[in-house]
Amino acid sequence: MERIVARYWMETAFPVEEAAATIAGEQSTGTFVAVPGETQALRERYAARMERVQDLGPVAQASLPGSGLPRHGKAERRAAEIELSWPLENMGTSLPNLLATVAGNLWELKALSGLRLLDLSLPAAFLDRYQGPQFGVAGTRSLTGVYDRPILGTILKPSVGMSAAETAAQVRMLAEAGVDFIKDDELQADGPHCPFAERAPAVLQVLEQHARRTGKRVMYAANITGEVDEMLARHDLVVQHGGTCVMVSMNSIGLPAMKVLRAHAKVAIHGHRNGWGLLGRSPAPGMSFVAFQKLWRLAGIDHTHVNGLSNKFCEPDDSVIASARACLTPMFAPPHPGCEVVPVFSSGQTARQAPATFAALGSTDLIFAAGGGILGHPAGPAAGVRSLQQAWEAAVLQIPLAKYAESHGELRVSLESFGG
Amino acid sequence: MERIVARYWMETAFPVEEAAATIAGEQSTGTFVAVPGETQALRERYAARMERVQDLGPVAQASLPGSGLPRHGKAERRAAEIELSWPLENMGTSLPNLLATVAGNLWELKALSGLRLLDLSLPAAFLDRYQGPQFGVAGTRSLTGVYDRPILGTILKPSVGMSAAETAAQVRMLAEAGVDFIKDDELQADGPHCPFAERAPAVLQVLEQHARRTGKRVMYAANITGEVDEMLARHDLVVQHGGTCVMVSMNSIGLPAMKVLRAHAKVAIHGHRNGWGLLGRSPAPGMSFVAFQKLWRLAGIDHTHVNGLSNKFCEPDDSVIASARACLTPMFAPPHPGCEVVPVFSSGQTARQAPATFAALGSTDLIFAAGGGILGHPAGPAAGVRSLQQAWEAAVLQIPLAKYAESHGELRVSLESFGG
Repeated sequence: MERIVARYWMETAFPVEEAAATIAGEQSTGTFVAVPGETQALRERYAARMERVQDLGPVAQASLPGSGLPRHGKAERRAAEIELSWPLENMGTSLPNLLATVAGNLWELKALSGLRLLDLSLPAAFLDRYQGPQFGVAGTRSLTGVYDRPILGTILKPSVGMSAAETAAQVRMLAEAGVDFIKDDELQADGPHCPFAERAPAVLQVLEQHARRTGKRVMYAANITGEVDEMLARHDLVVQHGGTCVMVSMNSIGLPAMKVLRAHAKVAIHGHRNGWGLLGRSPAPGMSFVAFQKLWRLAGIDHTHVNGLSNKFCEPDDSVIASARACLTPMFAPPHPGCEVVPVFSSGQTARQAPATFAALGSTDLIFAAGGGILGHPAGPAAGVRSLQQAWEAAVLQIPLAKYAESHGELRVSLESFGG
Repeated sequence: MERIVARYWMETAFPVEEAAATIAGEQSTGTFVAVPGETQALRERYAARMERVQDLGPVAQASLPGSGLPRHGKAERRAAEIELSWPLENMGTSLPNLLATVAGNLWELKALSGLRLLDLSLPAAFLDRYQGPQFGVAGTRSLTGVYDRPILGTILKPSVGMSAAETAAQVRMLAEAGVDFIKDDELQADGPHCPFAERAPAVLQVLEQHARRTGKRVMYAANITGEVDEMLARHDLVVQHGGTCVMVSMNSIGLPAMKVLRAHAKVAIHGHRNGWGLLGRSPAPGMSFVAFQKLWRLAGIDHTHVNGLSNKFCEPDDSVIASARACLTPMFAPPHPGCEVVPVFSSGQTARQAPATFAALGSTDLIFAAGGGILGHPAGPAAGVRSLQQAWEAAVLQIPLAKYAESHGELRVSLESFGG
C-alpha cells in the first residue's frame, strides 16, 4: 500500500529515536495503556514507520514550554530531522483527515520541546479526489496575456475604507498605468461600506472597458472570502462580469471550502496566505510553507503568496525563495500533473528586488506585486509600472539595475526614490 | 458603530505604543508609503483603535526570530498586553473575514518578537449570521439523559486499524459497561479499512439495541470529518440510524464548512481541536483557546476539547481550566443566547482527576472522557465506568477520594491501578 511521508524538525530531551516513536505511536495506534484489540498484527499493518532520523546535535534550551524529561538516563536536549510514514490505508486520500495525522495532536507531546512540519510527500492517488490547479502558471499567463516576464501587479490600498466607486476609480488609474494584475487587500472582502456586489461589478466594468479599448485584459483577484454559498455566488458574479480570477484567504476558509470552490470555479483562484506567520514564523512550533502550500495546490489554488525579498515582514530571504521554488516544483511525476502554481511576491517590493529575485528563482514565472512601489513613484503609477518592467528586463539580461537605469528614466527615478 | 475588540500579549523592542500602532495600521489602513486616497477622514472612520496598553516589563530576549530594532533611541525589549478595536463596518459580521483582521498578517510584523491573541469580544450582531450551538449543555444532557454529573465517555482505541465490526464490538462492550458517551478517535474518519458507511451504521445499530434493552441512549460522536458533501451525507447517515452526535476536526475543516454543517445538522456537533498545539502551545506565536473557541461556538459546535488536568500532553492545568471555564461563560448578554458549549476533558484521565477538576470548574457540566482509565481497569470496563461515577460523587460531595474509596470498591481499585 502506498504511504504518506512527513518530514519534521524536532527537539527533544529524550533519545531521538524514542521521541520519534512517541509521535509515530500517538499518530497511529496509541493510547497510554495497552488496550484490548491493539494486537501486534494491527500495529504492523497500521503503525507509522520511522523512515529516517538525522541527529542535528545538542541544543542549549527547550524552545517550547511544557516539555518533559526522561525518567531514567541522561537528559540531553538535541535537535533532529526525522521522516515518518503512514500507510495511505489509515486515512485514505482525504486532506482534512491527512491533517489530523500529520498535523494533529503531535505538537502537544511532552516528549517534544520543538516540532516543525518541514515537508510532505503524498501519493498521486490524491489526484483521484482532488483536482489541483485549474490554470496554474500557463493558464494564468494565458488569461493575462503576459509571457516571458513576471506578471506585474498591485494591491488596492488603503486596505479598507474605499467605496465601490472609489475602488473602481483606483482600478481605472492602475489599468491605465499598465499593470497586469490587481488584487483586493485581504482585509476587504464584503465590508458593509464596500459590498462585494457593488465593488466587483464596478471594478470589472472598468476593466472590460479597458480591454475593449486597449486589447489588454487586466486580471482582478476579487476577494470573495466568506461563507461557502457567498463565495460561490461571488465567483459567479465575477464570471458574469468578465473577471478572470477570485481570491480567498486560505487560513480563513479551510480546505473543504476550497475544494468546493475549485469544483465550481471557471476562473483562476488566488490563494492568500494571511495568518501564515502564526503557523510559519517560529521554528517551534511551526509548519513550513513548503508543506502547507502542497495541501492547497491539491485543493485547487492557482497562485499563492510567498512574501518577497527584503520584505517589510520578518521572513528571511532564503525562506521566501524556498517557498517560491516549492510552488514551481512538481508535486507528482509524469504522467500525473505537477500541480505547479504561480508564486506571488509582495510586501515592500520595488524595482530593487527584481535582480535578486530572478537570480534566486531562475524563472519569471511569478506575480510581482508592488503597492507603494507603483503608486508611490514620483512620476506617477504608469512610470512605477514601467520601472518594474525595466527592472525585470535588466534582471533577465543580467545587466546591473544602475547601469540599465542610465538609459531607462522610470527605473532611475524608482531607484532614487525607494532607498537602497 | 459597534466594534470588535481583540486582546493580545505582545513583545517588542520598540516603544510599546508604537508597536501597537504598527499592528493597528497594518490591520486596517496601512501600506508602507502614503498612497492617494488614504485621507485623514478615512483613517478616522476605519482605523483600528488602541483601547488599552498595559506594560508587562522588560524581557531578556526575543521570543521569535526575524524581529527588528528601532533605528533611533534605546532598544529595550518589553512585553505588554494590548487591546485593539476595529469598527464592525470594516469587515461586517463574517468570521472568515474577521480572521484576516484579528489573526492575519500581524504575526509577521518585524516590530514584534512575540504575539499571542488572548481573547476576542464580538458584537451580538454576529448572531444575525451565525446560529451558535444548537444543543449546548442543556441539549447534550437531554440527548444523553445524564443530569447532575459529568457525561462519562471514552474514545475508541486503537486509533486506527479496527474494522467496522471490530469497532461495533468495542462499542457494545463499552455500552454494556455503562458509558454515556463514545467518540471515534480523530485519526479514524473514513479510512479505507473502516469506511464510515460501514462503521457508523454498525455502531449505531448496537446502540439502538442497547437503548431498546436498557432505556439508555449512549451518545456516539461519529467522526464525519471530510469534504463538505461527505460530511453532510455522513451526518444524514448518523441521523438515519438514530445517532445523536457527529464529530469534526475543527482545524481540518475550517469555519465556513462548519457553518454549512451547523445549518444542516439535526444532532449535536462535537468539535475536536486536534492540531491545537500548533496554534496554542507557544506563548509566541500563538492564539489562546479562549479566543479560538469563541469563533467555533458562533459557527455552531456544541462540545469542544480542553485537554484534562494532569494530562499526558504539555498543557498546564491552569490553561486547561481557563479553556473549560471559557466554554461555559456566555459570549453575549441576555436577551441574546450565551452560546455556551460543553467542555470535553480527556487525555490520561482517570478517577484521580475528578476532585481537582470539579474544584477548579465549580460545575459538572462537562464530558469526562477516559480511555485507558475505563478500558484499563483491572476489574473490567464496567468497573472502570463505576469508578469514574464514584470519583465524581466524591468530588461533588467534597469527600476525599481515598475516604470514598473505602466504601466503593471500583474506585479503590482504580486508585491503586492508576498511580498517584
